[in-house]
Amino acid sequence: MTETCDPLDLPQRILMGPGPSDVPPRVLAALAAPTVGHLDPAYLRIMDQTRDLLRRVFRTANEMTLAVSGTGSAGMEACVVNLIEPGDEMAVCVNGVFGTRMADVADRCGASVHKVEAEWGRVIEPDAVAAALKAHPRTKVVGIVHAETSTGAHQPLEEISRLVHDAGALLLVDAVTSLGGADVRVDDWRIDACYSGTQKCLSCPPGLAPVTLSPAAVAAIESRKSKVRSWYLDVSMLRQYWGQARVYHHTAPVNMTYALREALRIVLEEGLDPRIARHQANHARLRAGLESLGLRYIPARSLTTLNCVAAPEGVDEAAVRRRLLEEYGIEIGAGLGPFKGKAWRIGLMGHSSTVRNVDLLLAALRLILKR
Amino acid sequence: MTETCDPLDLPQRILMGPGPSDVPPRVLAALAAPTVGHLDPAYLRIMDQTRDLLRRVFRTANEMTLAVSGTGSAGMEACVVNLIEPGDEMAVCVNGVFGTRMADVADRCGASVHKVEAEWGRVIEPDAVAAALKAHPRTKVVGIVHAETSTGAHQPLEEISRLVHDAGALLLVDAVTSLGGADVRVDDWRIDACYSGTQKCLSCPPGLAPVTLSPAAVAAIESRKSKVRSWYLDVSMLRQYWGQARVYHHTAPVNMTYALREALRIVLEEGLDPRIARHQANHARLRAGLESLGLRYIPARSLTTLNCVAAPEGVDEAAVRRRLLEEYGIEIGAGLGPFKGKAWRIGLMGHSSTVRNVDLLLAALRLILKR
Repeated sequence: MTETCDPLDLPQRILMGPGPSDVPPRVLAALAAPTVGHLDPAYLRIMDQTRDLLRRVFRTANEMTLAVSGTGSAGMEACVVNLIEPGDEMAVCVNGVFGTRMADVADRCGASVHKVEAEWGRVIEPDAVAAALKAHPRTKVVGIVHAETSTGAHQPLEEISRLVHDAGALLLVDAVTSLGGADVRVDDWRIDACYSGTQKCLSCPPGLAPVTLSPAAVAAIESRKSKVRSWYLDVSMLRQYWGQARVYHHTAPVNMTYALREALRIVLEEGLDPRIARHQANHARLRAGLESLGLRYIPARSLTTLNCVAAPEGVDEAAVRRRLLEEYGIEIGAGLGPFKGKAWRIGLMGHSSTVRNVDLLLAALRLILKR
Repeated sequence: MTETCDPLDLPQRILMGPGPSDVPPRVLAALAAPTVGHLDPAYLRIMDQTRDLLRRVFRTANEMTLAVSGTGSAGMEACVVNLIEPGDEMAVCVNGVFGTRMADVADRCGASVHKVEAEWGRVIEPDAVAAALKAHPRTKVVGIVHAETSTGAHQPLEEISRLVHDAGALLLVDAVTSLGGADVRVDDWRIDACYSGTQKCLSCPPGLAPVTLSPAAVAAIESRKSKVRSWYLDVSMLRQYWGQARVYHHTAPVNMTYALREALRIVLEEGLDPRIARHQANHARLRAGLESLGLRYIPARSLTTLNCVAAPEGVDEAAVRRRLLEEYGIEIGAGLGPFKGKAWRIGLMGHSSTVRNVDLLLAALRLILKR
């Protein structure tokens, strides 16, 4: 026998970082179900069911709802690359890592990008969007992050959606860290393109990107003059596989679809509203505890799914994370950008959002910080 | 409890189509190991091990060896989009679906594409490549499919590699249906960019694309004048995550990496040479049996991993596939392109390449075809 490396032996973590979150045993069991072919009738039925479950979680009737075969960032790229043709104008709201990323993706897709900026940790004001739309009346798409994972800011969308549609543009929303944990209403809020990841509030391993496109977004794709720059993410072909034609495009990540389907079943068994309420309650409990330890939240409007707090002056934040990981098996996240070395990002997403996890983390922090 | 859909209940297939192949229980068990964070020291160690195992399976010392977070076609797109800048000349060898796809991908990436064509089922002749290189002396990349899954043709590469390098171009090879089942020698054959899929001869579920890039390919990427058009697949950023810097790019498909690592361990425990010999022996056994049933192979040089045979005149090929699936749980593939409705594609890949599967399929075909 050739020497390779040891058998897999993984620690059992408690995932309270910016994602992935803890995966329920039912989802891991589904992931390990026997692989079947991507055109097997049994698999096509699973795709249909997954699509139906995704529509319910996105709160949409959009026909064009699917799981893109990549992680959340592939969902971002799929939305942008399909909606944008070289020379199109796109406004991108930037108040953290993921808005910055969206502007970069749009630039690479050939868009003429207008940034609508806010300080990291703050949300984008409707007035700023209105001003950008006035300055650039040919704007085709406005992109915005609902749940900015780098700062914990929770972006209100309804007023901005009204402005975007009044200007005749399409609204593209990043719901990576909100879908399945905070309220996301694709149809009510008139979101034209929305993407998420599986590994946040859906508590499925990373590897797929749920995406939904409104009829207006699909019409924009259908009226393109040029081919989509990405073959892999071309929705005009993907829809023929997810639709009744079942035209082979690429080999779907079969087992990941099993896992996503099971994760969505769990979300809907709990119910979206009770699930959102659970995230609110556990966030409130954590917040009260963190503030009683003297920790300060960075965003004015915090997500319930991700808690970004400043590390106290004089504390080696990396050492605290290391102790949490080594002594408790708890993962929390570091700060990014201007908050690098200065903040912690504590996720309470999906299966990780429990009273048990909140109270354990608070107890551990109290000991480590000697408060 | 909200109504969703039934718990997962999958049939146990025998996967003898063009992929996925049967996944060993050890790989499914690894897939279902607890999810950890994509920056967890335990996961980073697994990435390093996976990279080392990939190098051994690719038979390369290339530093830039990784698993792209998408299926095989994402591997194709990753190689092309990183190597090609708008206006670059690329020669693409086309003798089936996957060469056709590579030409489409290259066109979308902005390449000026020269097709080197051969009839479907035949291989590309070195003379045709030499002629294309002579006609287009500024050719930067030559793309070719080692194992054309749509026709079963097995492409020799050594002579073509010599021509490509004599002309100062880079050689890009699709090894989706050969890696881990047929001989693939990245360094010996001087392949500059090579991609594969996990779900063929590696017998891991679909979802990742092993990719390796030679130092010359990396140098070409480093000397680009424009940004890579895909953010998600940009190797200059991916290498910072796979390398020692560990800069966050996107959330890796953690559990899929566990599975790929285990699948590669199994490949190397068997040994590449014995494994290739097993694929040859089972192919010879199947071939003798199919020919004794009066079936004819379509390609002159057949792969051992995929057997493309003409369906007999007057036989409803789809009905035969349906009976195999329903009565035996055996999946085989349909013909594509000019062979649609006229051929079967029988995979003997990885864990599916066994005497038991060969003899069962032959017995079933004998009964169904009444031979």
